[in-house]
Amino acid sequence: MVRSFAFTTQGKLHSADIQMFLMPTLLADTNLFLWVDLEKPTPEETKFLLEDVFHFHPLSIEDCVMLSPSPKVEEYNPKEDDRFSQYLFMVIHAVDYSRKDGVFATSELNFFLGKNYLVTFHEVPLRSIQLTEERCLRSSQNIARAPDRVAHTLLDAIVENYKPALEELAYEISELETKVLQASDSGILNKIIQTKKEVLHLRQIIGPQREVLAKFARGEIKLIRPHLVPYYRNVYDALFHIFEQAQNYTDSLTGILQVYLNMSSNRTGEVVKLLTLITIVTTPMMMIGTWYGMNFDKSMPEVHSEYGYVYAVVLTVVTTVITIWYFRKRKWF
Amino acid sequence: MVRSFAFTTQGKLHSADIQMFLMPTLLADTNLFLWVDLEKPTPEETKFLLEDVFHFHPLSIEDCVMLSPSPKVEEYNPKEDDRFSQYLFMVIHAVDYSRKDGVFATSELNFFLGKNYLVTFHEVPLRSIQLTEERCLRSSQNIARAPDRVAHTLLDAIVENYKPALEELAYEISELETKVLQASDSGILNKIIQTKKEVLHLRQIIGPQREVLAKFARGEIKLIRPHLVPYYRNVYDALFHIFEQAQNYTDSLTGILQVYLNMSSNRTGEVVKLLTLITIVTTPMMMIGTWYGMNFDKSMPEVHSEYGYVYAVVLTVVTTVITIWYFRKRKWF
Amino acid sequence: MVRSFAFTTQGKLHSADIQMFLMPTLLADTNLFLWVDLEKPTPEETKFLLEDVFHFHPLSIEDCVMLSPSPKVEEYNPKEDDRFSQYLFMVIHAVDYSRKDGVFATSELNFFLGKNYLVTFHEVPLRSIQLTEERCLRSSQNIARAPDRVAHTLLDAIVENYKPALEELAYEISELETKVLQASDSGILNKIIQTKKEVLHLRQIIGPQREVLAKFARGEIKLIRPHLVPYYRNVYDALFHIFEQAQNYTDSLTGILQVYLNMSSNRTGEVVKLLTLITIVTTPMMMIGTWYGMNFDKSMPEVHSEYGYVYAVVLTVVTTVITIWYFRKRKWF
Amino acid sequence: MVRSFAFTTQGKLHSADIQMFLMPTLLADTNLFLWVDLEKPTPEETKFLLEDVFHFHPLSIEDCVMLSPSPKVEEYNPKEDDRFSQYLFMVIHAVDYSRKDGVFATSELNFFLGKNYLVTFHEVPLRSIQLTEERCLRSSQNIARAPDRVAHTLLDAIVENYKPALEELAYEISELETKVLQASDSGILNKIIQTKKEVLHLRQIIGPQREVLAKFARGEIKLIRPHLVPYYRNVYDALFHIFEQAQNYTDSLTGILQVYLNMSSNRTGEVVKLLTLITIVTTPMMMIGTWYGMNFDKSMPEVHSEYGYVYAVVLTVVTTVITIWYFRKRKWF
Amino acid sequence: MVRSFAFTTQGKLHSADIQMFLMPTLLADTNLFLWVDLEKPTPEETKFLLEDVFHFHPLSIEDCVMLSPSPKVEEYNPKEDDRFSQYLFMVIHAVDYSRKDGVFATSELNFFLGKNYLVTFHEVPLRSIQLTEERCLRSSQNIARAPDRVAHTLLDAIVENYKPALEELAYEISELETKVLQASDSGILNKIIQTKKEVLHLRQIIGPQREVLAKFARGEIKLIRPHLVPYYRNVYDALFHIFEQAQNYTDSLTGILQVYLNMSSNRTGEVVKLLTLITIVTTPMMMIGTWYGMNFDKSMPEVHSEYGYVYAVVLTVVTTVITIWYFRKRKWF
Repeated sequence: MVRSFAFTTQGKLHSADIQMFLMPTLLADTNLFLWVDLEKPTPEETKFLLEDVFHFHPLSIEDCVMLSPSPKVEEYNPKEDDRFSQYLFMVIHAVDYSRKDGVFATSELNFFLGKNYLVTFHEVPLRSIQLTEERCLRSSQNIARAPDRVAHTLLDAIVENYKPALEELAYEISELETKVLQASDSGILNKIIQTKKEVLHLRQIIGPQREVLAKFARGEIKLIRPHLVPYYRNVYDALFHIFEQAQNYTDSLTGILQVYLNMSSNRTGEVVKLLTLITIVTTPMMMIGTWYGMNFDKSMPEVHSEYGYVYAVVLTVVTTVITIWYFRKRKWF
Repeated sequence: MVRSFAFTTQGKLHSADIQMFLMPTLLADTNLFLWVDLEKPTPEETKFLLEDVFHFHPLSIEDCVMLSPSPKVEEYNPKEDDRFSQYLFMVIHAVDYSRKDGVFATSELNFFLGKNYLVTFHEVPLRSIQLTEERCLRSSQNIARAPDRVAHTLLDAIVENYKPALEELAYEISELETKVLQASDSGILNKIIQTKKEVLHLRQIIGPQREVLAKFARGEIKLIRPHLVPYYRNVYDALFHIFEQAQNYTDSLTGILQVYLNMSSNRTGEVVKLLTLITIVTTPMMMIGTWYGMNFDKSMPEVHSEYGYVYAVVLTVVTTVITIWYFRKRKWF
Repeated sequence: MVRSFAFTTQGKLHSADIQMFLMPTLLADTNLFLWVDLEKPTPEETKFLLEDVFHFHPLSIEDCVMLSPSPKVEEYNPKEDDRFSQYLFMVIHAVDYSRKDGVFATSELNFFLGKNYLVTFHEVPLRSIQLTEERCLRSSQNIARAPDRVAHTLLDAIVENYKPALEELAYEISELETKVLQASDSGILNKIIQTKKEVLHLRQIIGPQREVLAKFARGEIKLIRPHLVPYYRNVYDALFHIFEQAQNYTDSLTGILQVYLNMSSNRTGEVVKLLTLITIVTTPMMMIGTWYGMNFDKSMPEVHSEYGYVYAVVLTVVTTVITIWYFRKRKWF
Repeated sequence: MVRSFAFTTQGKLHSADIQMFLMPTLLADTNLFLWVDLEKPTPEETKFLLEDVFHFHPLSIEDCVMLSPSPKVEEYNPKEDDRFSQYLFMVIHAVDYSRKDGVFATSELNFFLGKNYLVTFHEVPLRSIQLTEERCLRSSQNIARAPDRVAHTLLDAIVENYKPALEELAYEISELETKVLQASDSGILNKIIQTKKEVLHLRQIIGPQREVLAKFARGEIKLIRPHLVPYYRNVYDALFHIFEQAQNYTDSLTGILQVYLNMSSNRTGEVVKLLTLITIVTTPMMMIGTWYGMNFDKSMPEVHSEYGYVYAVVLTVVTTVITIWYFRKRKWF
Repeated sequence: MVRSFAFTTQGKLHSADIQMFLMPTLLADTNLFLWVDLEKPTPEETKFLLEDVFHFHPLSIEDCVMLSPSPKVEEYNPKEDDRFSQYLFMVIHAVDYSRKDGVFATSELNFFLGKNYLVTFHEVPLRSIQLTEERCLRSSQNIARAPDRVAHTLLDAIVENYKPALEELAYEISELETKVLQASDSGILNKIIQTKKEVLHLRQIIGPQREVLAKFARGEIKLIRPHLVPYYRNVYDALFHIFEQAQNYTDSLTGILQVYLNMSSNRTGEVVKLLTLITIVTTPMMMIGTWYGMNFDKSMPEVHSEYGYVYAVVLTVVTTVITIWYFRKRKWF
């Protein structure tokens, strides 16, 4: 699906859903700014637009079409041959709101930023694109006056979209924090380690993203006009904060893991204590019982005495009580 | 609430609680230095002062009004349009004296430093602001001669205010150090891990703060006059020392954690030892008792002998003593 | 074995399997590009080609002939004596598809890149060489127009070949992830640690490789024409991604190890629990049995009573049931 | 206490214990080099000397008088106002020979190095100062010819004084290494962790010191004449080596900790083994004894037989021996 | 012992064992290259040669005579006074082939490299010196043409000599790898930790060495002629590989340690399992035996019945078999 918009330099919508053969004409008009959004385009659309209309470098197109695992930003300044145009190519990853199977689902967004155009390319529908579109069309905001402004709005929306995922993660971690003190099944351990891996994954996604945005924030990108740099710096700051949060989460999870492992070993300790307690309590009775079970018929006066049994009962009770009292006093239990 | 002061270049108070519409006039007078403190201002006050009187960049105002998780320092040098003034914008975090729920409560302080003004903006009342105000009004100190002097006093007060929080942390750690050797409940483990997280949190607060202050200490900020740089360097050194203390605390807590885990596993070891000790001590008696409980009526001469019982008693005592002596000798107990 | 190809600047095959004494002549023809591949060459071939025909520096030849554990790239720019030619020498390691004994088998590929020649040198047959050869000979692709293009194809093939090894590793890790939850033999621990070592090994192989390729990607190598740099950057990106994957694997394996160690300690905990359970269940019966085994013939009314035995049975059942109920209620089991 | 010396440029003592009001005169004489040592001076002495005689910056004086937790070096080059003189201010920490309570006692030494003077300031008597004084007065060494030479001697003495503390630490670690294999009380664990903390503390003391000295070693300090730089480099090398030693100690202590934790868990293992051994050895006898304690009066032929008892004894001995032999063979004990 | 050689610029031996008073004359002859090797020289020899003949800086001489724990390289370019000559001073450490007491024995080699001389200084006889001497005297190799060539040969021999020590370490680690799976005595733990410390020690030796050699490899040393830099780079590469090997060894040892700790805890687990197994197997018999040991003479029909004993035997066998079968089925054993 190809959506396209042409805006005037005042940010007003000039035309939408432009037919593809008209694009080169509109592109040549420096008073217009063109935004073309390719969502799961056909190979023909891809070829026609990226190659023939915009004259992008074949490598950028390849990177665009194939899945890139890591974000990147590259400026193409045509030197040798005039065939290619001057543009900025960027790959960035949006994070999905609903996490699937406890794993962050990232979706790639490629964009090409030229002097008077912005080309976005993605395989799945993206909320950030939709949001940016809406903001552009509401003329009150005037953000559609130049491609670097729209690009900023887009990046801002992408970074903003990380937050729900982050909150869900925070919720999950706080849940683990309570669960770990209650149950002890191996499932929680698995969950802790899974969540930790996920957080590390998130940091691996954000890490290179941050470096890419840092270039914008430092004003190194020529196609971004200087007075817009503070806006990009703000986006960078937001991403940086998310990165720091992820670091916090890792620390929390390490703590939870330590509590889990300690709880688990404490439980074994408790069981051993119980076993010992039972042994301590039953030992006097077992000894007395065994002792008077001996068959010395002649030489064992107690067993024939009339008060023998009473004596045995009293002895058992007294020794048991003393034993329990002794261990209580020594604080062993 | 808006408080405002105008000082002469000699550091004397010119006027206080200036009416807002007079501010532009005072601001234009280069012989005066204006300090405006906005504490939880209304949106109208914010808009009028920051936008219309001081002409700050909308992004700075946005950062100012919204909570910024990380400190920052930015210099605005107007280039393209004369609408904005030249100023330094800084976000810094003060730490609250009384820690709530064992978590550091930070409160944000934004300040704008211009050639002849200082604008401070905060949501909650801050002790550092109050302290600085007092010092400025006591004319003996002459610190209110220029905005960069007052800014230094402010930063100094903020960093100074970290110390009580740090001391409370140190006290808590020393308490944990003694507790860990006595009790063994899971609560202490939780406390240790919580405190560790808190210390890491403190380091995360201070870390970026340090980088911001380093810019002042290196004299990179143009609005700070060179002969004041050593003063800023002193503030930086104080913060650096706090950061190192936090590192020390982390090491201490790691040690405490190791002691805790070892104590906990030692306790299980002690219980197992006790169980074994009981088994060892009772075994001879149990064996003899069981043995002579056998019903061999004809072929077991001992049970019919007159001294059988005496013999059994002696045997029990002797074997028990030998067993205990043997294990003592082998240092097993 | 020496294979050699001469291509015209249009990428067409000029001649193949050139006799060695003809090479200097072809080399002098700047309209031709020469690719000489030495696979396990004889010392004479090595000496004649590398020294006498191409005039490489003796140290490069030594590095080439001996096994180099780490990759390197070096540019030789003849200064003092004209005897040596200007070229780029590179050592890179390919990873074998079929892993032998769970250890990555790497095979070294040395290559010399000159203005109009490419010399590859390797001890074992390499799939990447074969692949590149095939691509060069299929004239449709035109990649054989210059040595830096062929070098790129070669490097691309080598990096591509890392992927099957990586997939096998991923498969093994996912297998370990399931196994660790089932069995507990020491073999799995060994396997986990072995795999971790292997992954670290892979990272050690890739690490310096990455640095070597980074030089290409940054366009620091003079013999690579600027318009080819983006292609080399792509190869670098692929390698970088593999490196990150390896990092992910390390994290996964650390998690698996923690699960293993916990499972192993949990199993001991389970056994202790079982022992305690048996003790708890049997204790009432043992106590009653022992107690009524005492031989107090006169003073023990129960044993002579008619319902004594019934009473004992009932007592046993009741106390056992109460004990089990008590411990169930306290959630000890 | 204020000690003062004036040396001629030949390193000869000109005068000692100079009266304070004479100092400005001597200071003005460029043919003399003045060393003033302030040991726990009165506030008046401090004020008069540092402010009125030497004209140091108030911040340096403040740093000097207050305890600085971290070392620093700062050059003051007067720019704006002529009131302050050009000098180098340095804070460095000496380590006490006799360690108090197992904690390194550091004592601060501040010094001001000018073109023809050296001012040292410290609260407690320092061995390094005394040593340097002695060396200066023994004219044979000629080290008192210039302030940068004396400063070097002073720094050298301070670094040299670290060594006894280091040796004591090494001795303590080797003691821990033997103790850990013998006893198992919790005191050793505490001692290990304390010593580790101390070593980390030492590294924290030395770390910034090293950075300060590195500035001297790289010849960045203008007041140090270039031909003396190698001497400062030597001091730096010595400190660097001490830093590396501390790193070694940390590694050793980590090893000792691991041995301790293992010893402690091994001891529990040993006790469990003993318990099991006792169970194994006594089980056959207990079973036989219990079995023949049954009261089947009619249907149990063995108990009435004449050789029943002998048979029971033989059975007990045989089964016990077989059991022990079996477990020995299976290497369980 | 002082050995000395004078070579012509063609690398031929001019004279050997030169008398010390002749050295200044030979040194002045720019057509000769002088190699003086001081092995455990007397203080007089040291003084005469280093100070009076070669005019080295007193600090270099001090570093040379005293043991330096860390390697260094320094260039002396005489500026102020002509007394000292221009030279390169280097301290490097050779590793002994036969390891003493499981600790790497390092021996220091100091060398001074001038325009036409090389002075080596060491306390113990070194194999690398001997080897280099032999190579120099065999005129076929021509390496003795210049001091920078001989220095390279020397460094190469030193790095080469690390390899046997490395191999022995590798052998020891592979031995530990097998031993750890068999025995469990504390000695192995000690051995693992010792070896790990040793490997860390080796890395600490090599680390600064690498940095020193990196200066040569980058061609930063002026006294080394540019066309020899690749040779020094080769030596650097070899050392770098040794450093990486040491890193591998550390990883292996960490793995071995983890296996050891797990084996040790598994053994305790096995013993507990055995204890539980014995309890399970003997419980039915003990219960039945105890039960029928009760003295209910009237009300216990089984004991007076004719088949009572047979019934008890059958009951015991059946319950024991059922118990074992039950636990086998539940996979508890």
